[in-house]
Amino acid sequence: MSLNEQLWIDRCHQYSMIDGESGFQVNFAGMNFTEEQLQAVDRRIPAVHAEMQKIERGEIKNPDENRKVTHFTDRSAYTGGKEYSEIEDFVEKIRTGAITAGPGKKFEAAIINGIGGSALGPQLVQMAVNGPYWNEQTSEMRRGYLKIYFLDNTDTAGLEDVFRVCDPATTLVVNISKSGGTQETKNNMICCMEKYRAAGVDFASHACAITMSGSELDQLASRSGWLKSFEMADSIGGRTSVTSVVGHLPAALAGVDFKAFLSGACHMDGLTRSPILSRNPAYMLAAMWYIAGNGKGDRNMVIVPYSDRLILMSRYLQQLVMESLGKELDLDGKVVHQGLNVFGNKGGTDAHAFIQQLNDGRDDFFVTFIEILRDRSVSAITPGIAMGDYLHGFMVGLSNALRGKKRNVIEMRLDTVDEYNLGMLIALYERAVAAYAELIHINAFHQPGVQAYKLASKGVIKLLTTLENGLAELRGFSGTVSEFAAKLDLRDSEFELDGILAKLSANAELRDLPFRISREWNKDRGWIYSVC
Amino acid sequence: MSLNEQLWIDRCHQYSMIDGESGFQVNFAGMNFTEEQLQAVDRRIPAVHAEMQKIERGEIKNPDENRKVTHFTDRSAYTGGKEYSEIEDFVEKIRTGAITAGPGKKFEAAIINGIGGSALGPQLVQMAVNGPYWNEQTSEMRRGYLKIYFLDNTDTAGLEDVFRVCDPATTLVVNISKSGGTQETKNNMICCMEKYRAAGVDFASHACAITMSGSELDQLASRSGWLKSFEMADSIGGRTSVTSVVGHLPAALAGVDFKAFLSGACHMDGLTRSPILSRNPAYMLAAMWYIAGNGKGDRNMVIVPYSDRLILMSRYLQQLVMESLGKELDLDGKVVHQGLNVFGNKGGTDAHAFIQQLNDGRDDFFVTFIEILRDRSVSAITPGIAMGDYLHGFMVGLSNALRGKKRNVIEMRLDTVDEYNLGMLIALYERAVAAYAELIHINAFHQPGVQAYKLASKGVIKLLTTLENGLAELRGFSGTVSEFAAKLDLRDSEFELDGILAKLSANAELRDLPFRISREWNKDRGWIYSVC
Repeated sequence: MSLNEQLWIDRCHQYSMIDGESGFQVNFAGMNFTEEQLQAVDRRIPAVHAEMQKIERGEIKNPDENRKVTHFTDRSAYTGGKEYSEIEDFVEKIRTGAITAGPGKKFEAAIINGIGGSALGPQLVQMAVNGPYWNEQTSEMRRGYLKIYFLDNTDTAGLEDVFRVCDPATTLVVNISKSGGTQETKNNMICCMEKYRAAGVDFASHACAITMSGSELDQLASRSGWLKSFEMADSIGGRTSVTSVVGHLPAALAGVDFKAFLSGACHMDGLTRSPILSRNPAYMLAAMWYIAGNGKGDRNMVIVPYSDRLILMSRYLQQLVMESLGKELDLDGKVVHQGLNVFGNKGGTDAHAFIQQLNDGRDDFFVTFIEILRDRSVSAITPGIAMGDYLHGFMVGLSNALRGKKRNVIEMRLDTVDEYNLGMLIALYERAVAAYAELIHINAFHQPGVQAYKLASKGVIKLLTTLENGLAELRGFSGTVSEFAAKLDLRDSEFELDGILAKLSANAELRDLPFRISREWNKDRGWIYSVC
Repeated sequence: MSLNEQLWIDRCHQYSMIDGESGFQVNFAGMNFTEEQLQAVDRRIPAVHAEMQKIERGEIKNPDENRKVTHFTDRSAYTGGKEYSEIEDFVEKIRTGAITAGPGKKFEAAIINGIGGSALGPQLVQMAVNGPYWNEQTSEMRRGYLKIYFLDNTDTAGLEDVFRVCDPATTLVVNISKSGGTQETKNNMICCMEKYRAAGVDFASHACAITMSGSELDQLASRSGWLKSFEMADSIGGRTSVTSVVGHLPAALAGVDFKAFLSGACHMDGLTRSPILSRNPAYMLAAMWYIAGNGKGDRNMVIVPYSDRLILMSRYLQQLVMESLGKELDLDGKVVHQGLNVFGNKGGTDAHAFIQQLNDGRDDFFVTFIEILRDRSVSAITPGIAMGDYLHGFMVGLSNALRGKKRNVIEMRLDTVDEYNLGMLIALYERAVAAYAELIHINAFHQPGVQAYKLASKGVIKLLTTLENGLAELRGFSGTVSEFAAKLDLRDSEFELDGILAKLSANAELRDLPFRISREWNKDRGWIYSVC
């Protein structure tokens, strides 16, 4: 054997971690780190580990928000608790028709209304476990479980698309908002209520909530006599809520075995509670990110699962990683502008897309391949060679080619895509993110950057109200945006005014306002808006 | 008005481009460039423009492959050509049942079998025009057009998912491969044939092809008497093929108005043929990318369409941009390792996910917001405030917040998401990519980095064949991968062997091989494989 090949094999033996029980395996040998670099991280692991223990002991680990962080620990007790049985019981009654959508009407579908942390996790689980065409299967194929739709934005197109195929009479609406006041979710809820009203269907008997006890949403659900309001813990953040009630109800409604999912997550929690770097895949993952990106995220994390069912993994991790690690200040209040970019799609498809750049272009990334060993069918291509062999071959070939160009590669293997393995994968990344946050000394569990934008958005909505009052007085006026701004004494807000006028005139026919705005293009003066 | 506000408004006026005819608008004022930087790029625009003219004159612009690049020009003549009418005619016959799937059987669905450039464009168009639930609509709601499924990988899970809901008897299979030999597509085709055979359905009368004339696929289609084989031009690359026959057939089968799509693309081609930087949105876009990333892609391109229907835009652009611009060598053969990373999802959702990092974290990106002015329904939230106003408000709020932190922001506006506007958007980015490639002096139209991985993959498949022969002789042998490698005299390939043995043992029950492999975990020795 050549020396190079021998060194490579030795490195694979040294830096692979295998869990014989589950078949989970991760090989870090393709990352360009030295043993010295690894040892430097290793010396910091005791401190990292002590912080992980603080999390699990229930100490305050989100200091800004004065909150505990309980997603790692709550899930181990969850299936023994009251909420678990309540949801399983509720879903079984929905499935069997013990709870009906109305006299003689079985629930057929559920709309999951939630954004960000209340949507990406449930979407990932649904796609991974039930695949892209679950809703097209017959009720029998779905074993009586519900079709699942997501309202995960505040876009009228998304809303109309859902209601083009969902019949309110047989559809359950699950409203998820931890605070109970998330504006996007509230908007969709209001619009759902209107759809139900227009269809002559009672909303309350088709609605349930997941929210903190006593929140605006909880109060509404209780006041209006909704089917159920399930409680969400204050100490679980949206982006890590998929192993809590937020993940549970949507999953259970679609027949996902949530117990197996948690069992996988808890199994990985067991593996990642090791204080020893070389035995803890989450700490090793965090160490790799740290070394590859110089502790500053200088390399993008490219996530390439070789699995159609895991196509949402990169989107899920984009939220988990970037929202957790993209921070301006460290724990001492020092300006650090940290972060770690995540993107990806799926292999082998990506090899026909952006992988050209990974092979040849900027060396500014590390790629994580996630391979699934078990094929879903034999699918023979030639005697002895099956479709799954090709998928495997493409992954190994790409991995070899990338390493041949000194790119950084992590290879993961899972036995299959099911609840258990998905739970493991999510728990692994959750722990790696928490550990990495300690290495870079930031709070992984808050999201202060969201406040500035929320405030600015409120300003725009307030301006719209002001403007609507002003415009009603301006009937007959025509002019450019600047002229409107001057006329309305809103010159400081001309930029925002420009957007609002464009929006109002594009939707004039839809809107029920005491005035109408239209615009025409003038090649010398630009858009000329008219109020009538 | 404050001075800052005045400067900002002036900058918006100076660096916005508006097309009154279509309502397209782009505002570059939120990008942190100076007039001097822009002028430096401007001085290079005549040279860039001359190259664009060469493309459109049909000169060789893909020198490595000695090919013309005709996607900009072919589309203007396409709707007047024979292929356009042939496809429209074919689809109309499928839709009305003049071409049947068998006696008395109307085609109900189409499987689009293609990868990379043959999939991402059609997927983007389908989602944007027909939305996520097209397949769940009744045939009447679909006006007789077909349900659409994609096989865009070589994953047995994807294959089985499609055939769980598709009935071969009423399903058309569209096989797309320019070269006619793309392995992934070939694999899916072979497996489709087997599915049809098993269902007792004739494949040939349910199949058509899109490929270069005379290719392996073309020959197969003609030899086997498939319904049709449509010709794909040699001079159109996969990633820019969505405005050609590759985009046309899948779109037309789903009732997409392809003429309107091309009309939008051609309209944008008109706008982006201007030789003047300040009037050419594609050149301005390229200039922004160039300045923001120091001509080396130092900033990631974050694509955030405020539109559920445009959620695949970032994935599409990931391919278009990264495969085109991620190159090792420039046109003079100098090593440059160029590239431009692209990622994104959709707004306002992203504000509850990775936008935390954009606000607070690493300043290593520029974001492009794509706003859709027209709402799909009024969806009133409070009197005077509609759901669409919130979406708008969130976008402007985020834009203001980001600019407040000196982040780089481009804002685009489109009137609506329809064929015409989508065509414009795609044509804009195609031209911007071509122009940017000139600024960094690379060939945007080849993908040499894909070769290394293809070769390496073939090596793995070859090794599998060798191994299968060897293993048949090893019945009764047990050992670690290293021991197998030694026994089989394949020590140089232990890494690849490890993957193949894992794969074969995970799928032993599925496979029809003259031996069986299983593995057991041994805590001291690792995986122990056994052949029987």
